[in-house]
Amino acid sequence: MKDFKKYTRQYFMPPVECMDWTKKEYIDKAPIWCSVDLRDGNQALIVPMNLQQKIDFFKLLVKIGFKEIEVGFPAASETEYHFLRALIEQDLIPDDVTIQVLTQAREHIIKKTFEALEGAKKAVVHVYNSTSLSQREQVFKKSKEEILKIAVDGAALLKKLADETEGNFSFEYSPESFTGTEPEYALEVVNAVLDVWQPTSDNKVIINLPSTVQHSMPHVYASQIEYMSKNMKYRENVVLSLHPHNDRGSGVSDAEMGILAGADRIEGTLFGNGERTGNVDIVTLAMNMYAQGVDPELDFTNMLEICEQYEKYTGMKIDMRSPYSGALVFAAFSGSHQDAIAKGMKYRETHDCEHWTVPYLPIDPADIGRHYEADVIRINSQSGKGGVGYILEQYYGLNLPAKMREAMGYAAKAASDEKEKELLPDEIFELFKVKYEDITTPFNITEAHFKQHNGIIAEVMVEHDGEKKTAVASGNGRLDAISNALKKQFRLEYRLETYQEHALEQSSSSRAIAYVGIRDEQDKRFWGAGVDQDIIKASYNALVTAINNMLNHVE
Amino acid sequence: MKDFKKYTRQYFMPPVECMDWTKKEYIDKAPIWCSVDLRDGNQALIVPMNLQQKIDFFKLLVKIGFKEIEVGFPAASETEYHFLRALIEQDLIPDDVTIQVLTQAREHIIKKTFEALEGAKKAVVHVYNSTSLSQREQVFKKSKEEILKIAVDGAALLKKLADETEGNFSFEYSPESFTGTEPEYALEVVNAVLDVWQPTSDNKVIINLPSTVQHSMPHVYASQIEYMSKNMKYRENVVLSLHPHNDRGSGVSDAEMGILAGADRIEGTLFGNGERTGNVDIVTLAMNMYAQGVDPELDFTNMLEICEQYEKYTGMKIDMRSPYSGALVFAAFSGSHQDAIAKGMKYRETHDCEHWTVPYLPIDPADIGRHYEADVIRINSQSGKGGVGYILEQYYGLNLPAKMREAMGYAAKAASDEKEKELLPDEIFELFKVKYEDITTPFNITEAHFKQHNGIIAEVMVEHDGEKKTAVASGNGRLDAISNALKKQFRLEYRLETYQEHALEQSSSSRAIAYVGIRDEQDKRFWGAGVDQDIIKASYNALVTAINNMLNHVE
Repeated sequence: MKDFKKYTRQYFMPPVECMDWTKKEYIDKAPIWCSVDLRDGNQALIVPMNLQQKIDFFKLLVKIGFKEIEVGFPAASETEYHFLRALIEQDLIPDDVTIQVLTQAREHIIKKTFEALEGAKKAVVHVYNSTSLSQREQVFKKSKEEILKIAVDGAALLKKLADETEGNFSFEYSPESFTGTEPEYALEVVNAVLDVWQPTSDNKVIINLPSTVQHSMPHVYASQIEYMSKNMKYRENVVLSLHPHNDRGSGVSDAEMGILAGADRIEGTLFGNGERTGNVDIVTLAMNMYAQGVDPELDFTNMLEICEQYEKYTGMKIDMRSPYSGALVFAAFSGSHQDAIAKGMKYRETHDCEHWTVPYLPIDPADIGRHYEADVIRINSQSGKGGVGYILEQYYGLNLPAKMREAMGYAAKAASDEKEKELLPDEIFELFKVKYEDITTPFNITEAHFKQHNGIIAEVMVEHDGEKKTAVASGNGRLDAISNALKKQFRLEYRLETYQEHALEQSSSSRAIAYVGIRDEQDKRFWGAGVDQDIIKASYNALVTAINNMLNHVE
Repeated sequence: MKDFKKYTRQYFMPPVECMDWTKKEYIDKAPIWCSVDLRDGNQALIVPMNLQQKIDFFKLLVKIGFKEIEVGFPAASETEYHFLRALIEQDLIPDDVTIQVLTQAREHIIKKTFEALEGAKKAVVHVYNSTSLSQREQVFKKSKEEILKIAVDGAALLKKLADETEGNFSFEYSPESFTGTEPEYALEVVNAVLDVWQPTSDNKVIINLPSTVQHSMPHVYASQIEYMSKNMKYRENVVLSLHPHNDRGSGVSDAEMGILAGADRIEGTLFGNGERTGNVDIVTLAMNMYAQGVDPELDFTNMLEICEQYEKYTGMKIDMRSPYSGALVFAAFSGSHQDAIAKGMKYRETHDCEHWTVPYLPIDPADIGRHYEADVIRINSQSGKGGVGYILEQYYGLNLPAKMREAMGYAAKAASDEKEKELLPDEIFELFKVKYEDITTPFNITEAHFKQHNGIIAEVMVEHDGEKKTAVASGNGRLDAISNALKKQFRLEYRLETYQEHALEQSSSSRAIAYVGIRDEQDKRFWGAGVDQDIIKASYNALVTAINNMLNHVE
C-alpha cells in the first residue's frame, strides 16, 4: 500500500504531559451511563427504527437500568419529534430516568427543540458544534473566535429558553470532533460555555468530549481528557462525559482510560451500534467491570433476550465474537481448552474458591443466562476426549472409562472431520450408540446360566453367523467365565482388560450401563457397552460388542 | 447483577512501575506480522477448514504479504498434519515466507512435530506450556519449579531434535496464559528457556507473551510487556512477540501499547478470528498505522476481495462495523456528516492538501477499493439534502439549485421514512423524475413561438384540462415571456424565482436539463425540471412542471 504518505496524525497532544491516569490500574466504580442508541445508534441504521420500535427499545434500555437516555434530535426529523412527543404524552419516562435531546448550536433548531420538549418533567438539552481544525477550515470556513462564538451563543440561548420553558432542564455541551481539536482551544471553548452556564453543585452541567472520529491511540485520548479535567473551570460542578467511537477498534480502551483520566460519564450504545464503526459498546464496558468485581449498575442477566430484542429492533446482527454477547465467546472447541475448563470447574466444586478463576472463561456463562453445556463445550474436528466425554456425561449420564473416552474422542473428531461440521450433543450420543452399543454380529449371546463351583461356571447360548451354539467355561467372575467360554468355543484371542458399570437412572428398577475394554494380540484396544436392567446381561452385551468390534475392525 | 463480588482482578502487576512506553505517542514502524489464522483462527471455527481451503487461505496470506504464518498443530490433528505435508511436498511455501508449527512442551508431541516437518527448508517451532497461577493450581497441580521444568525440558528437546533434523529451524516459546502469570515468574521461566537456547544475533529466538485471556486494561498489559522487555536476558537476540486476544474488547490496544512497550512482533488473524472473542485483528492494526502515515508492510488494497475470500474459507461473517473492513464503516447516513464530507472532498479538490483530512473519513475509501459513491453517501430517513444532491450529481449528472436540492432532500427523507428502507441511487433518481420531471397536468405546453420586439413576445400553445388554448405575452427573455403568457391567460399567481440549466452530456447534440423554481402567493416554493435537446423546450417544460406542482399541491 504505497499511499501511506497521504496520511498523517490528525490529533493534537496537550501542552503538558498528562499521564497521571496510568497510576490507576482499574476502574473501581461504574460511571454514569448514557445510552445514545436511539439517536447516534439509530441514525446509523440502514433502516432507522419506527415509532413503535423506538418505544420498545426505550423500554428495554430502562429495564437494563439506564438512567440517562438520549432519545433523538427532535428538530431534525419528524420521526424523532413524534417519538419524543409519544414519550412525554404517553408518560413513558420513569421518574428516575432523564431523557436527553440533541441540537445543533443554531437558533431556529434550538427553539424547535424546546418546543418539542413541551410538557417534559426534566431533560438534558445537548448542544454541540464542531471545533476541529479540519471542520473549521473545510466545512465552516470560520476562525477560532467565530466557532467559539457559535458555542457561546448556543449556550446562552439554551439558558434563556430553559428559563422561559416550563420543566427542569439541564445542559450538555459537546465540542464535536474534539479528537481533531487542539486541546488548548477545546478548553477555551468549553470554559467559555461554562462561563455562560455558571454551573453550581445543585445545577451541574455535562461537558462531553467525543472521539467523534478516533485519530489516536487511547493513551493519547486519555491524556487529552486528563488535561481537560485538570484545567476545566467549575470542574466540581461539571459532569465530564465521553462519547467514544471505534474507528481504530479501540472505543473500549478510549472509554476505560478516559474514566481513569477523570471522566464521570459514558455515552455509548448496546453492542457498539452507531455511526460507521459504531460507538463504544456499553455491554463490554459494564461486563469488564463486572468481571473484575465492580458493580456495573446495569443488568445483563438476560443477555440472550437483550441480544434478541436488539437484533429485532435494529436489524443489525451481533458479531459471533462480540465480547460477552457473541454466540461463540464462551465456546471451547480445542481439546486442551476443554480439558482445562473441565478441570477448573471440578476444582471449583471441590474447593472453597473465593473468586471465579476457571481457565479460559473470563466470567461464569450462567451469570448472563448462557449455558455451560450448550455454549462452552463444543465439538468439531479440533476437539478432544475431554469435551466429548463431558457431553456424554452431562447430557446422557454416561461416565466412560478414561481410555474409552479417548477412543470415543477420536471417533467424534474423525466424524466431524469427515462430515466437515460441528457435532451436536445428540449426534455424539448417536455416534456412541452406533460404535459401542449392542453390536450383535458376528456374535450374539441370547442366554447365559451360571453355577458356583470353584469360581463360576458359565453356560452361554451364542448365535454365530446364524448358527446357535453352547459354550461352557469357568472363571473368577461371571463375565470372566463368559469370556473364557467364548474364547474356548470359538478360539478367540484377546485379553479382557477393563470393566466398569454404573446405574443410568436413580430408581431401584433402573437400567445399568456396562463398559468393557479388550486388547487383541497386537495390544490394540476395542470397546463395547451394554445397557440393561440386568447388570449381567448389560455386561455380556458389552463384552460381545467389544469382541465384534475387534473382529469387524479393518485397518 | 448482584454476583459481581464473585469476581476479582486476576492479573499481576510488575514489581516496579513500567510506564515508560507512555512517552511514545504512536507506532512509527510496522512490527513483524505473524498470521495465526490457520491455527488459532481455524481451531475456533464451527467448521474448521478442509485441506483445500487451508491451501487457498495460505495463498491469500502470502498475497497480503505475511512473511511468517503459523500453519497448525501437526501433532494434534490429522488434517493439520496433512496440510503441513501438502505445503512442503507441493512446494507451496515461497522462499521469503517462514512457516510456524505449534507444539505442547511434551516429548512425544515434540517428536511427532519434527517428523511432520521433514523436508521443510525452514520453520519456526513454537513450544508452549501454561504458566498461570490458576492453571498451575487447577489443571496441572504442579509447583512453579515443576512448571518451569516442563518449559526447560521442552526447550532442550526442541534444540536436540532441531540439531538432529535436516532443515533450518528456529524456536519460539510462549508462557501460555501469560496474562494470569506473575510477571517475575514469567520472567524466570522465559530466562530459563533462553539459557537453554542461548540465542545469538545470527540465531535469534522468539519469546511470545500471549494475552491468552484478557484480564486487565491494556496499559497494565503494556507495563507487563515493558517489564519483560527490560529484564529479559539476551534481549538483543530475542524477537519479542505478542499474541493478544480480545475478551475485554481491547485486543487492538493490547497490541498497539505492547508495541510501544517493546514488542517487535504481533501474532494475530484477519478480521480478529480466533478462540472465543478472537485474536487481535491484524487488518485494523495495519490500517491504523496506514491511517497515520506509516507503511503497514501488508497490502489491503483489495479489501473487498480479501473479505470475500475470508468469509468463504472460514464460514464467518465480517461484522458490518468492523474497522476498515465492515460494510458500513464508511457510510454517512446523517445529513450533517454528508454535508461535511462533501465540503471536505470539495476542499481537497480546490486546495493543495498535503494530507488526507476529510471529516468523518479516517481514510480515503478508494485506497482499499471501496467506493465513495456506494459506500459513503447513503440515504435513509436521517439523511439530508447534501447526500441526495451528491448522488444526483455523481450518478446522474444533475446539479440542482441549492434550494431545490433541499426540497428534494426532504422528499427523499420522507420517502425513506414512509417506506422504512434505505433509498438506493436509482430509487432517488426515480423519485426525482416522478416529483419534478415533465408533469403535464393540468398544463402542458405543446409549442412555443417567439418574436423579438421590445424584448421577446411569446405565443404559446397550451393544453389545459384537455382544451387547447393559445396564450401570448411579452417578457425580458423567452422563459419570462412564456411565464407572462401563462399568467395572463390563466390568471395564475406566482413569482418566477430560480432558473438554471446545464448540459447533460458532453457532445454538441447533447440534451440539457433546466430547473425552474417559482413561489406562490404564500411564498412557498415549487420546483420543476425539463430535459430536452432544445434548451427552450427544456426550460418551458420545467416551468410548466413547477406550475403544475403548485396547482396539484395539497397541504
